[in-house]
Amino acid sequence: MTKPITEEAISNLYSSTYPKSLAIADLGCSSGPNTLSALSELIKVVDKLCGRLGRQSPEYQVFLNDLPGNDFNTIFRSLPGFQERMKKQLEDGTGPFFFTGVPGSFYGRLFPSNSLHFVHSSYSLHWLSQVPDGLEGNKGNIYMASGSPPRVLKAYYDQFQRDFTLFLTCRSEELVTGGRMVLTFLGGRSQDPTGKECCYIWELLAMALKEMVFEGIIEEEKLDSFNIPLYTPSPFEVQSDTEKEGSFSIDRLEVFEINWDAYHNEINLPDAFKDSGYNVARCMRAVAEPLLIEHFGFGEAIIDDVFRRYKAIIADRMGKEKTEFVNVVVAMTKKE
Amino acid sequence: MTKPITEEAISNLYSSTYPKSLAIADLGCSSGPNTLSALSELIKVVDKLCGRLGRQSPEYQVFLNDLPGNDFNTIFRSLPGFQERMKKQLEDGTGPFFFTGVPGSFYGRLFPSNSLHFVHSSYSLHWLSQVPDGLEGNKGNIYMASGSPPRVLKAYYDQFQRDFTLFLTCRSEELVTGGRMVLTFLGGRSQDPTGKECCYIWELLAMALKEMVFEGIIEEEKLDSFNIPLYTPSPFEVQSDTEKEGSFSIDRLEVFEINWDAYHNEINLPDAFKDSGYNVARCMRAVAEPLLIEHFGFGEAIIDDVFRRYKAIIADRMGKEKTEFVNVVVAMTKKE
Repeated sequence: MTKPITEEAISNLYSSTYPKSLAIADLGCSSGPNTLSALSELIKVVDKLCGRLGRQSPEYQVFLNDLPGNDFNTIFRSLPGFQERMKKQLEDGTGPFFFTGVPGSFYGRLFPSNSLHFVHSSYSLHWLSQVPDGLEGNKGNIYMASGSPPRVLKAYYDQFQRDFTLFLTCRSEELVTGGRMVLTFLGGRSQDPTGKECCYIWELLAMALKEMVFEGIIEEEKLDSFNIPLYTPSPFEVQSDTEKEGSFSIDRLEVFEINWDAYHNEINLPDAFKDSGYNVARCMRAVAEPLLIEHFGFGEAIIDDVFRRYKAIIADRMGKEKTEFVNVVVAMTKKE
Repeated sequence: MTKPITEEAISNLYSSTYPKSLAIADLGCSSGPNTLSALSELIKVVDKLCGRLGRQSPEYQVFLNDLPGNDFNTIFRSLPGFQERMKKQLEDGTGPFFFTGVPGSFYGRLFPSNSLHFVHSSYSLHWLSQVPDGLEGNKGNIYMASGSPPRVLKAYYDQFQRDFTLFLTCRSEELVTGGRMVLTFLGGRSQDPTGKECCYIWELLAMALKEMVFEGIIEEEKLDSFNIPLYTPSPFEVQSDTEKEGSFSIDRLEVFEINWDAYHNEINLPDAFKDSGYNVARCMRAVAEPLLIEHFGFGEAIIDDVFRRYKAIIADRMGKEKTEFVNVVVAMTKKE
């Protein structure tokens, strides 16, 4: 769903600039099995385009960015094998490829001025630079929820606006004129920031945690002061903040729905993966576990307990109602 | 000793090019406490120069290169603290600094064409890309030794020439015209490649291993097929190979002696560090242990045994004779 937008953006970028050396950055690359796949798709698109246009392949400089705590070693050790496989899939004479790791927050400068052609960021920009200030009234919730007071919603949106604006300003300094970005957020469908597609998954985690408060396993004050540093913007918010910042023109802005159980059509998965509650809880655990450990100081047994409860709640709800995430994808070009 | 040469080179580079963004690479950066110190020295020199010339600080893009197995995570996690300390030491308005990790062999392309200004490489280029072919006659030795047959010496030098020439060619494609390199090798003083300053430290390791063959702990054939992928060139070899490759002009070429016990003038070291045999064996262990484990498949107990014996042999020799390493430092500029 994001793929055709990304392909269009990189094709248009390449055929409007023809750089001898093409600099691509993946911001928030993480270190899982998908880290390099989006990049290899981008390279394949340019490679095909070069073949069709009869042009020599550019040199590819690929910047992989994430926070300094990310496991870059694992990415780097997988690169020789990845590059071997890439070479087999591409035309002779494609490349060379130069892969580099860039540790740091994308809510700040990461690259020299006018040095990048293309920025890709997938499922990272909904993470805020910090938990917003002013969430004191958000008791019993761990994110925005239908019961959150208006100033909590405002605090979250203000933080998102500040962060996203800073992101755009930094990238506008780093991209060449005509450089492009494709950004994918977990987002909201409408202008209600507490819509079910944004918040429900977190409300269910809050339910699991509240059960444990009730049973005396977690202190209530600890739960009350726990909030997730996330904001799931609506397409309208992404558009208006981009226009307000002013450095980029929006080429495409789209919204997709993705079932919580995104694996439900996949075949050849081990049985455990066919358990939808398990799948969703597993994905959420990868994201939420570090936050929970940092705030609550949970040991392994309690963390397992949290996610056992969470999984049961998720499985129950998925059986009873439509459960979807919403993705907001935006493609934009740096103005003259 | 290397410092004034490096300072001169980076000063001359900067004041002949004044790049808006200065791209510096450290090739073979490793991941110890010294990884970032050479780079911070380079930046301080440019910073001072800018202050004196009344010029605005350039943006610094720093590339840290080593093989993909290097521990980049440790470097990256130390960067936020390092950058904090740097900022305190530098003038206001210096930077920004962009640190990136580049996993790969420097005996191949690592960077886009014409993208680097300065290359620094310290104690890395004496490592060959592989153990040379044709060392069958080198029984009982693990490196070139006074008893090695001439074709073993030739095999080592041929491999060095191939590797170093490839290194120069790759870097000449990556550096801008006028770009500079300062390279420090463990080397030899004279044209005798089996001179004591090159080989003796390895002959002592071979002695320890031979003891263990004698005691039946190591198989003789295993020792006979073990050779270190290293070449310690003479200044003459560095010069002639550079001239033959042709892309660079040599600005400085110097030779320094360094006592094996380089710590002998340091104060405030824990007692263990004051034991010279311990120091040297510890440094050599960092280098030799991975090679020994890969070839012999040693477990921890045997590795400890090897280095216990090696330390005793080193300490004995250091008490009795002058023991020195020789450093060869070369500064060069990419020709028009």
